[in-house]
Amino acid sequence: MVCGSNLDFFFNPRSIAVIGASATPGKVGYEILRNLLERFRGRVYPINPKAKEILGLRAYPSVLDVPDDIDLAVIAVPAPEVLKVAEECGIKGVKGLVVISAGFKEIGPEGAERERKLVEIVRRYGMRLIGPNCVGVYVPKTGVNTLFLTRERQGYPDHGPIAFISQSGAFGVAVLDWATARGIGISKFVSYGNRADVDEADLIEYLRDDPDTRVVTMYIEGVEDGRKLFRALRSTTPVKPVVVFKAGRTEIGARAAVSHTGALAGRDEVYSAAFKQSGAIRVYGMEELFDVAVALSLQPPAPGDRVAVLTVGGGSGVMATDALIDLGLKVPRLSDVTVEKLRRVLLPIASPYNPVDVTGSARDEHLVEAVEILMRSGEVDVIVWIPYYMVPGISTELNKKFIERVREVNRELPIPIPVVGVATGGTYTAKAAREAEKMGIPMYLSPERAAKVVHALVVYGRWLRKVGTFTNYVERFRKLIGY
Amino acid sequence: MVCGSNLDFFFNPRSIAVIGASATPGKVGYEILRNLLERFRGRVYPINPKAKEILGLRAYPSVLDVPDDIDLAVIAVPAPEVLKVAEECGIKGVKGLVVISAGFKEIGPEGAERERKLVEIVRRYGMRLIGPNCVGVYVPKTGVNTLFLTRERQGYPDHGPIAFISQSGAFGVAVLDWATARGIGISKFVSYGNRADVDEADLIEYLRDDPDTRVVTMYIEGVEDGRKLFRALRSTTPVKPVVVFKAGRTEIGARAAVSHTGALAGRDEVYSAAFKQSGAIRVYGMEELFDVAVALSLQPPAPGDRVAVLTVGGGSGVMATDALIDLGLKVPRLSDVTVEKLRRVLLPIASPYNPVDVTGSARDEHLVEAVEILMRSGEVDVIVWIPYYMVPGISTELNKKFIERVREVNRELPIPIPVVGVATGGTYTAKAAREAEKMGIPMYLSPERAAKVVHALVVYGRWLRKVGTFTNYVERFRKLIGY
Repeated sequence: MVCGSNLDFFFNPRSIAVIGASATPGKVGYEILRNLLERFRGRVYPINPKAKEILGLRAYPSVLDVPDDIDLAVIAVPAPEVLKVAEECGIKGVKGLVVISAGFKEIGPEGAERERKLVEIVRRYGMRLIGPNCVGVYVPKTGVNTLFLTRERQGYPDHGPIAFISQSGAFGVAVLDWATARGIGISKFVSYGNRADVDEADLIEYLRDDPDTRVVTMYIEGVEDGRKLFRALRSTTPVKPVVVFKAGRTEIGARAAVSHTGALAGRDEVYSAAFKQSGAIRVYGMEELFDVAVALSLQPPAPGDRVAVLTVGGGSGVMATDALIDLGLKVPRLSDVTVEKLRRVLLPIASPYNPVDVTGSARDEHLVEAVEILMRSGEVDVIVWIPYYMVPGISTELNKKFIERVREVNRELPIPIPVVGVATGGTYTAKAAREAEKMGIPMYLSPERAAKVVHALVVYGRWLRKVGTFTNYVERFRKLIGY
Repeated sequence: MVCGSNLDFFFNPRSIAVIGASATPGKVGYEILRNLLERFRGRVYPINPKAKEILGLRAYPSVLDVPDDIDLAVIAVPAPEVLKVAEECGIKGVKGLVVISAGFKEIGPEGAERERKLVEIVRRYGMRLIGPNCVGVYVPKTGVNTLFLTRERQGYPDHGPIAFISQSGAFGVAVLDWATARGIGISKFVSYGNRADVDEADLIEYLRDDPDTRVVTMYIEGVEDGRKLFRALRSTTPVKPVVVFKAGRTEIGARAAVSHTGALAGRDEVYSAAFKQSGAIRVYGMEELFDVAVALSLQPPAPGDRVAVLTVGGGSGVMATDALIDLGLKVPRLSDVTVEKLRRVLLPIASPYNPVDVTGSARDEHLVEAVEILMRSGEVDVIVWIPYYMVPGISTELNKKFIERVREVNRELPIPIPVVGVATGGTYTAKAAREAEKMGIPMYLSPERAAKVVHALVVYGRWLRKVGTFTNYVERFRKLIGY
């Protein structure tokens, strides 16, 4: 088996052939070509035996007719023709195939036999294969895009530090679409379908070594080679976090997964144990998957489990505390010394305990001074701030002032303290929260969501300590984010 | 004690005095007046001893100088002046006071004494009081608005069937803001602060009889008169649902609540039992509060706990199944007869079991025909549909066709079957989902959120059966929504 890091031709090819390219808008072979031409700056060759020209490019009857080397072939022809064109790709010296076409293992014995033959061809010519029965690859940085959903209906996120691999194609693209609207950047997206050759473990290992990826996220329903996945996770998590959303957890959900993918879901306790022992962070929903990934991409892991809550709204402080305690984290009382320091900089009506409630009468400086005192106290390991951008005393400069102070203090601390935020509200608040996130502090709509994220930062910090890479990771991370 | 239904002057007064009105933008007394004038069509009188005119209205030194009857006075003067102006309101014959001013029980013994005296004045003159230390009342339909947050930073939702009462003012307005962006309509909003007179129980009873309110939602941290709240809930839930988000659940969260409001949070098991025995639906977060409320305002309660999942994306079907099973609901296998009926109308590659997976190649009619078969099967009590608006076969007419069919079938069924939806995605999908919601089917971003909503529809249906009002409720609801 070729090692994971040899998959570069899928993500950064010099030339791509689209086999089954079509001149008819709405057809899969048209939309793929159109999406690809949108951003890919390498050479593109439409393959179609009947067309002379598609979307302004010369079309060729077969990949064998192209007067150029081909790194990657995207195959979107009917299933019965796939073997023939794959063989031609092998002869041509193509390095990677992305087979979009369905009609393989997922349809039963006949398809399984076709899939077996496809793998045989791929192996014989030393190619690698993503799919079949997948939507393939999207890489904003290089413009590689094998997805067939039109831009009118589907969002395509910008480049960013989070990789996302998905066993489900439909769910994968829905998440990409959501991520676009949420402003989340993606390094690589892969929907790997029936994983006849390249599987989730190969992809994780590739992403482990990918300098553009800080956090790996994955959606899976079932795994065929559990040991291989475990090894890939175990070798990756000391270097970068892997966040896993595994569906088919319940018996009935697993039954549904079998009828959906033809893959066995397996017993959930086995997965749970494997994720835990390999340091993968398990989540239980799509929003949680990306909530956690965004935090891990922007903030260092937590050195411990003591959390300070710094809030403008008392109620939100209570909710945050409940949610943190529910997850087994600590919201400790602060020492008299720290309370006294806080009292000196806050309003008389403020509550200088933990949660630190600066009240709705607070001004920017109350939050800015309080966060420094908390960070330097040595009494807490993570901070949740809840700014309430809409109250009159909070200026439009708050994010800038607060986040600069956090950065300054973190630069001086031996171990940086992660900070995550809560911003409950509508248009104005969402805009301010997005701005804070661009400056490096992840913001969430509710205290409950922020608490889950804090838990992930704590759990990942604990894992890094356990495997002995905490210091290395943090040093590398500080350089990345400029702490 | 006056009964809850006598509070109408707070929500639909003919005239309002703003005591402490200011001509200085940014001041509380200015922003309240400005917000009030935005939509309120009754008479408004600014009270300020130093001003002649504010925002184009003649100002009066005292409420006693106003040559008109006053139904409602909004008081936003410094705490030491509140007793004097309240006394003047009493003499004037004002019916209701909303005291925004802080500086009462929440600041300690001195404030508590002031609050006691305020209540004494209110009782002596037969007035009613909301607050003190609150943001007060917002009623889109009548334009009553005592909030001081500017429209530049704060959204104000339109009229709709959901009432929201909040112990926390800051959290309350943040939720209003969020609801505006989410497109959720509000019948009445009340932040009741220290509840020196009118408390959550009074408000629930008022809302029980309010024809504009279909669902009551509330955020509370602690309750003083538990028996009274229990009675109010018990008398309301057979008529309309009450959804409760109670913070201060954990010991440390409760400690934070005490320092925030001065109110005792009490042991959580006691609350849990009280909510259960009074038929209130308990939720654990702000998004869940409104997810559930929107569903209860648009869909009938479920006659049982058997759920069908009808999906375009296999993965989402698996996730939905997991989440439903986690909550103790059933996702039953369908009978051979129903499977056969489904098979006849679906694509050969579709999976006609439960989840019913119409696949990403589906067209509108597959979802429309399948939902009718499921609704008429007698084998399921609720349906979760997951349309994937972005796939090529789904037209922009899907919502219309699907929802019309659901309505047609429900009109014929002896007991209507509730339908809720999942739409994971970005801009295009969110727009389509919003459209479906306007047509009456609530839509959620993830299967996990939809599952919680289904659970609430099942639990509320079970409660109505238990107290014997299921049939009455459903008949009334059918008329409301035209089933």
